Amino acid sequence: MGVAGRSVGGMKLYQAVAQEIGGMIRGGTLRPGDPLPSVRELCHTRSVSPSTVLRAYELLELERLIEAKPRSGFYVSEHAESAPQPDISRPKSRSTRVNVSDLVFDTLEASRDRSVVPLGSAFPGPTLFPWTRLARYLGSSARHMDPWNTVESLPPGSPELRREIARRYLRLGMAIGIEQIIVTAGALEALNLSLQAVTRPGDTIAIESPTFYGCLQAAERLGLHVVEIPTHPIEGVDLDALSRAIGSHSIRACWFMTTLHHPTGAIVPAEKKRELIRLLSAHEIALIEDDAYAELQFSEEPSLPAKAFDKKGFVLHCGSFSKCLAPGYRLGWVAAGRYSKEVARLKIESSLSTSLPIQQGVAKMMQRGGYDIHLARLRGQLRQQQSAALDALRRHFPAGYRVARPAGGYFLWIECAANVDSLDVHRRALAMDISIAPGPIFSARRQFRNFLRINCGHPWTPAMDRAIQRLGEILRRY
Amino acid sequence: MGVAGRSVGGMKLYQAVAQEIGGMIRGGTLRPGDPLPSVRELCHTRSVSPSTVLRAYELLELERLIEAKPRSGFYVSEHAESAPQPDISRPKSRSTRVNVSDLVFDTLEASRDRSVVPLGSAFPGPTLFPWTRLARYLGSSARHMDPWNTVESLPPGSPELRREIARRYLRLGMAIGIEQIIVTAGALEALNLSLQAVTRPGDTIAIESPTFYGCLQAAERLGLHVVEIPTHPIEGVDLDALSRAIGSHSIRACWFMTTLHHPTGAIVPAEKKRELIRLLSAHEIALIEDDAYAELQFSEEPSLPAKAFDKKGFVLHCGSFSKCLAPGYRLGWVAAGRYSKEVARLKIESSLSTSLPIQQGVAKMMQRGGYDIHLARLRGQLRQQQSAALDALRRHFPAGYRVARPAGGYFLWIECAANVDSLDVHRRALAMDISIAPGPIFSARRQFRNFLRINCGHPWTPAMDRAIQRLGEILRRY
Repeated sequence: MGVAGRSVGGMKLYQAVAQEIGGMIRGGTLRPGDPLPSVRELCHTRSVSPSTVLRAYELLELERLIEAKPRSGFYVSEHAESAPQPDISRPKSRSTRVNVSDLVFDTLEASRDRSVVPLGSAFPGPTLFPWTRLARYLGSSARHMDPWNTVESLPPGSPELRREIARRYLRLGMAIGIEQIIVTAGALEALNLSLQAVTRPGDTIAIESPTFYGCLQAAERLGLHVVEIPTHPIEGVDLDALSRAIGSHSIRACWFMTTLHHPTGAIVPAEKKRELIRLLSAHEIALIEDDAYAELQFSEEPSLPAKAFDKKGFVLHCGSFSKCLAPGYRLGWVAAGRYSKEVARLKIESSLSTSLPIQQGVAKMMQRGGYDIHLARLRGQLRQQQSAALDALRRHFPAGYRVARPAGGYFLWIECAANVDSLDVHRRALAMDISIAPGPIFSARRQFRNFLRINCGHPWTPAMDRAIQRLGEILRRY
Repeated sequence: MGVAGRSVGGMKLYQAVAQEIGGMIRGGTLRPGDPLPSVRELCHTRSVSPSTVLRAYELLELERLIEAKPRSGFYVSEHAESAPQPDISRPKSRSTRVNVSDLVFDTLEASRDRSVVPLGSAFPGPTLFPWTRLARYLGSSARHMDPWNTVESLPPGSPELRREIARRYLRLGMAIGIEQIIVTAGALEALNLSLQAVTRPGDTIAIESPTFYGCLQAAERLGLHVVEIPTHPIEGVDLDALSRAIGSHSIRACWFMTTLHHPTGAIVPAEKKRELIRLLSAHEIALIEDDAYAELQFSEEPSLPAKAFDKKGFVLHCGSFSKCLAPGYRLGWVAAGRYSKEVARLKIESSLSTSLPIQQGVAKMMQRGGYDIHLARLRGQLRQQQSAALDALRRHFPAGYRVARPAGGYFLWIECAANVDSLDVHRRALAMDISIAPGPIFSARRQFRNFLRINCGHPWTPAMDRAIQRLGEILRRY
């Protein structure tokens, strides 16, 4: 079909083919030594003639990007990569328009770049985790894996892992049978499945204000309405306001973080948690409890989740190993009470199951790997980093900001002077290779314009101190 | 608050507490030697008095389920498990009502049970895969993992793995840049994210008939309408019918398997694939191409996916390692064309990222682990098993059934005599510990009542031959 002289967008056809293949070599998809498609294959897929392909390859040879090997075909030249390979560009800020989703992705993008000081990162410092031991248990579990487990461990998931999770609940005095625990690929999947299990499009859910942005994105994707409930930066969600909201809206579910709330760090006191459960149970309202930071509480007597007071099974308690043990392994769970069967079905329908070697490796690490010793060390380190960060704020920030000292985790939620625009701070800081998380990403109505979330989950360095100093200088301009 | 004499559902309160803890021991959540919650903790979470807890523990001691250790607390007794531990019950069939979702889950449940002959399983035999080598590369990747990769490899995913995937495309003559490849937790997640990316609730999509049930479940969850397009058991989807459907419905996307269609095994010929792309591109209709079985084609000259002919980026090509290399690892991808950015965002929002050790381990296995040698062996074995299964059908099934010999994969799609009711066959077979997949689970309208899908992905054994014989006996009764 193809004609060698045919032209595409002003280019000859063979030039277009050469440009495409050349782009893959320059972009790094193709590496020195990689074989190129045969002339016959390219003719077939491109609907071009052999002579077009041969002319394209000739051109690429001239550019020294490829070379022919006798009786073997064409290969990417060993010299093709002589120039340092540029990364895919990462534009630092997309727009000045306030778009929560864009801002969330901007903030995420910035955390991927090691040259940016990660004060805006949502993740703990990746060097704080027991990678060597995790790798050992992962490798050994994979080596000893019974192949049949791949079908037997479909949701709810690996019995070994669910038993370990149940044992940790039990240490808190919570009797959670393994039959209500569903393993997921991280807490975010657990939260999303839970929300799907208890709502239908058009339903209304209650969320905190500020709230974790993942909750806003999930609500939007599922076509839900949200009612924002005032949330105290120390004591968490306001029950009187919630009670009024229940009176005036038909609330189907709540999505709350009652312990180490993101971004404030608030912990709802035990009696208030009990009261929350009483209120929701009376109205048969499901509670999706995001407890991703539970294990990062500094106290020797950690606060129990609201789930501990749930007698009727209305709470879907979502946990994670991503913040406390194994970031990037993608492992979490939900203890879903009366919704367990529905959540397990949704899990099967949306991603079939959770990686088996990951489940079994983490279960083994929990059994034998010194999980508690690691946690004690991690909490100690996070506490120190938090102190260092608060100290840096005192030294460098202009007076008038307000910040709580959360009893765990690695976020500081900072209220700046009323005239500060954190979106503007975000842009200015990013231009200096410093990230922050601006307040409006934590609100459906884009409130908290003068708030910042600062990450203190990384070992505190002089570079971080300098970054705080620069942020202070930016803030002084308002 | 608690009163020791308070009663719950006719039981004293202490009896209820004892029953709950006893249930966790008998059910296997608690194992011999496990510590029980302290009296103080249980008082707190159950709102009962210390005397209630003590009486409950006394009762459990009498039952020899737990024992007290001086100055240490209560533990599950070492003798508690003297009786063999029963598994959680797995009712083999839920109802006689035709409910596609229930039937799909029934069929899945049956595959988990090793005592059931897995002719209804959706999975290949788990012993056919290179577990030892996979474990080696997984362990070694985890050991050498740079902790910062956990943030750097957020979606679209690990550059190493995406490069390996791009190289396999290239071997087919397809130039797919790594920037359009998004790594997912298996093909099912890739398909679901793709469908979310190209549709809004209320949209209409075209699907094959019969079709993979995952497609029906996804459409239902997302509130989509489906138009079923007639599909030939050898040549796949009917383009004339599709063209007419496009004329009469506002079709937003198609979800098709153009190569080794599930359940029929049909392969759309290359020219028809090209024509399909022309048709869809002209109407700017997205094609979600489920190509999970691509690597299981027996031919030395495998059929290219429709994506190979896609010049405008309307095809989201979904692939998987679950059928060809690493079942249970949960790894797949989508080459999403013009929708790449949207799919990557949806991935971040719904599960953040794909397990990093899994991504890196499989990438290394592809680079160094003899992936092609494994594939050649696997295809040979599947071809043998297919012959054995077809032979068993010839010997044991009553005349009048019809079956194609697919050019790959591990399913046989069998049309029985018109009066056969495959739901009834399903129930009767399950009662004999034989599973099959009944036809109606592959249709939105529950058609294909006289069809069965038989799995020949397991090494063929005398037990399987006997199972086919018994199925033949069941069929003779109609």
